[in-house]
Amino acid sequence: MKVKTEKFTDRLFRNVQPIWDANHSHPFVQELGKGTLDKDKFIQYMKQDYVYLIDYAKLFAIASVKSTDLDMMGKFAAILNDTLHFEMNLHREFAAEFGITSEELEATKPTPANLAYTNYMLNAAQSGSLAEVVACLLPCAWDYWEIGKLLRAQYGHDLANNPYAKWIETYDSEEFGNGAKWLIDVMNELADGKPERELVQLEKHFQMTSKYEYLFWDMNYYKQDWPI
Amino acid sequence: MKVKTEKFTDRLFRNVQPIWDANHSHPFVQELGKGTLDKDKFIQYMKQDYVYLIDYAKLFAIASVKSTDLDMMGKFAAILNDTLHFEMNLHREFAAEFGITSEELEATKPTPANLAYTNYMLNAAQSGSLAEVVACLLPCAWDYWEIGKLLRAQYGHDLANNPYAKWIETYDSEEFGNGAKWLIDVMNELADGKPERELVQLEKHFQMTSKYEYLFWDMNYYKQDWPI
Amino acid sequence: MKVKTEKFTDRLFRNVQPIWDANHSHPFVQELGKGTLDKDKFIQYMKQDYVYLIDYAKLFAIASVKSTDLDMMGKFAAILNDTLHFEMNLHREFAAEFGITSEELEATKPTPANLAYTNYMLNAAQSGSLAEVVACLLPCAWDYWEIGKLLRAQYGHDLANNPYAKWIETYDSEEFGNGAKWLIDVMNELADGKPERELVQLEKHFQMTSKYEYLFWDMNYYKQDWPI
Amino acid sequence: MKVKTEKFTDRLFRNVQPIWDANHSHPFVQELGKGTLDKDKFIQYMKQDYVYLIDYAKLFAIASVKSTDLDMMGKFAAILNDTLHFEMNLHREFAAEFGITSEELEATKPTPANLAYTNYMLNAAQSGSLAEVVACLLPCAWDYWEIGKLLRAQYGHDLANNPYAKWIETYDSEEFGNGAKWLIDVMNELADGKPERELVQLEKHFQMTSKYEYLFWDMNYYKQDWPI
Repeated sequence: MKVKTEKFTDRLFRNVQPIWDANHSHPFVQELGKGTLDKDKFIQYMKQDYVYLIDYAKLFAIASVKSTDLDMMGKFAAILNDTLHFEMNLHREFAAEFGITSEELEATKPTPANLAYTNYMLNAAQSGSLAEVVACLLPCAWDYWEIGKLLRAQYGHDLANNPYAKWIETYDSEEFGNGAKWLIDVMNELADGKPERELVQLEKHFQMTSKYEYLFWDMNYYKQDWPI
Repeated sequence: MKVKTEKFTDRLFRNVQPIWDANHSHPFVQELGKGTLDKDKFIQYMKQDYVYLIDYAKLFAIASVKSTDLDMMGKFAAILNDTLHFEMNLHREFAAEFGITSEELEATKPTPANLAYTNYMLNAAQSGSLAEVVACLLPCAWDYWEIGKLLRAQYGHDLANNPYAKWIETYDSEEFGNGAKWLIDVMNELADGKPERELVQLEKHFQMTSKYEYLFWDMNYYKQDWPI
Repeated sequence: MKVKTEKFTDRLFRNVQPIWDANHSHPFVQELGKGTLDKDKFIQYMKQDYVYLIDYAKLFAIASVKSTDLDMMGKFAAILNDTLHFEMNLHREFAAEFGITSEELEATKPTPANLAYTNYMLNAAQSGSLAEVVACLLPCAWDYWEIGKLLRAQYGHDLANNPYAKWIETYDSEEFGNGAKWLIDVMNELADGKPERELVQLEKHFQMTSKYEYLFWDMNYYKQDWPI
Repeated sequence: MKVKTEKFTDRLFRNVQPIWDANHSHPFVQELGKGTLDKDKFIQYMKQDYVYLIDYAKLFAIASVKSTDLDMMGKFAAILNDTLHFEMNLHREFAAEFGITSEELEATKPTPANLAYTNYMLNAAQSGSLAEVVACLLPCAWDYWEIGKLLRAQYGHDLANNPYAKWIETYDSEEFGNGAKWLIDVMNELADGKPERELVQLEKHFQMTSKYEYLFWDMNYYKQDWPI
């Protein structure tokens, strides 16, 4: 009889539920799905997400450096390149629909929550193993895909009237899902056979950046910025 | 005629005044000076500062790696060693006076503001130059010395009745001041002759970590923690 | 009257002449130009260069992480991506013409000189500034372009009979030259206004990796490998 | 019945024998033991070892940064500090006995083999895990201890007439042995439970730096330097 072993990402997924539930029911996410989200909040989000993406892309560059396998190194390099040359372009185009210029995007100063999130990942990525890099960057990819699917399921019947329809379509897309799935596979490949003390450390990163996802929704919804 | 040139740290000091003023007049700092600070707030501070110190010490290790001068490398190594083997011991002893055990110190989970601060420095330190490492870690040393001197000047007449007297005496001490002065000198040495675009980057780090000092006081005074 | 200032790369070029002259007159390079180079030596070179390229590509990933300018970050990411997805493909195709399979390329163990070269760059790149990364990787790009132009000038009349003609055409090409010129411009941009002590450090890297270029030709010509 | 499991360092030790045998029978090592080693060769060794030690010390700083355990972090910091403030002093004193001034030690340019060795370790240490840092630095500590014990066993009866007696006594000492044993324990602690693909990578580092030990003896015995 074969014992079915749980994948590491199954464990991550199971344990992160309370945090992801909070993300999914966050007013920013829910109002985005309904199309009722205040435009100003979405604009702050777009700007913050733009500068976030620059640092997020750096994680793929670090992953490329830390890869010991040429195919994996090439895949991370391709994601880095696509992020900077295609995804950020889409970002600029979508932002333009909300009246945000490229200059405004470039000039955005990250809020404390944004900076806390990216610095957490960049520090862990630079000092840690490739598995740690992936554990840090995974929630952003995976939970966005979850949110895309969830909002489609909840509010997909009325996307025509939703000013944020394109956002939902992007993260619910097969293409985005495939990217997330590749990262999930890489996480399992890198975690395979690791001792529990290292899995605990990877899970800590995964939970932490999932929490930072929450703080990111929060700071845009409540328009938090530097108190000083 | 010799033109007197301003040192780089004179410029840093001049421009950071609004932030340091906010730090110095922060209720946590002022009540600490008066001795009226709520003990619970001080206990949270002691715990958070303890785990902060571990990551702060890592900056000296990184500085040691990035030093190109053997004396400087040795000095950073000595600070690292002293921090871990003497300063943290003092911390444990002082904490014990407030009923905090070593186990509690070790078990402390950093708050969002604490983690944001250390990750900012650790990221910048790892990816940046030695000058950037020093610009990041300088406010913690320098502004603590400023606060030590200020509180002594403001409230030194009544230290005997202040439960936090030892804190003030530590950071007002000649020894602590000499450490801060050495770092100030190193900052000037490393910044000397650098082009303005690099000085701007160093100043950005200095201002940022000065702001994080403010957030650190704030999170202890208002006992902020993870919302999730 | 305007004083014409020398660019930093003019200084690098001027001072590196003795080393580059040695590279250009090295029997490996000269026999490659004449087409008389022993095929076995070229095959060792192709294999070693293949694994070299993987680590060399990592320098562009590190440069992308250390860029503070989004355009520059994107350009480094594109070079990384092109190296891994196009240049290495060309490498595999060209190697196949000499009977080297992709499996042999992948299985190549770097010689001591190869490993010494890439580890020098990767260490300096990780601990140093973006300017240091570029100073390290510049000789490989720039001197290959110089060699391409030189061999074309010396032996271009007889390329039809040269089994290594494609090599010369690649590195003499406008496309390769434009890549080198972009890196030269970046070097000047990053070095601009830096104090002499930092320029000295950058020049040390440039001279060192120029010497490693020499050792690389040497180890392939004399088929050096691990003595143990 | 309890299965006795081999420690990871037992495996390392077993597999590295061919390389360490070559080190132990190297003419530099054997003539050092007999006291017949050419003084010029020993002087080159002392100088090269001095600059080697500076970079070797940096590995302990990196290990301190990558430690997740406070005790381990403190121990690495102490080794870093001791290396820079005590061991290098002993080095200077011992060098003085051979007429080498501190200025000469400081001015030493590392040979290709020296630089290849330290850059291998520094690159792997910066991009890798703490286990990789320790795997890299272990052979220098462990094999020196082995050599100290071996030369004592082979030539200990005649140390009084050996101008290099102090060298043998240092590396055969209980103190040095304890340092090596601590690192061996740390290696086992960090490797414990790791999957085979990661153990293979750790062993690769261990074998590599063991080979670099050989190249280091070689370059001093044959007084190798830059050909250019």
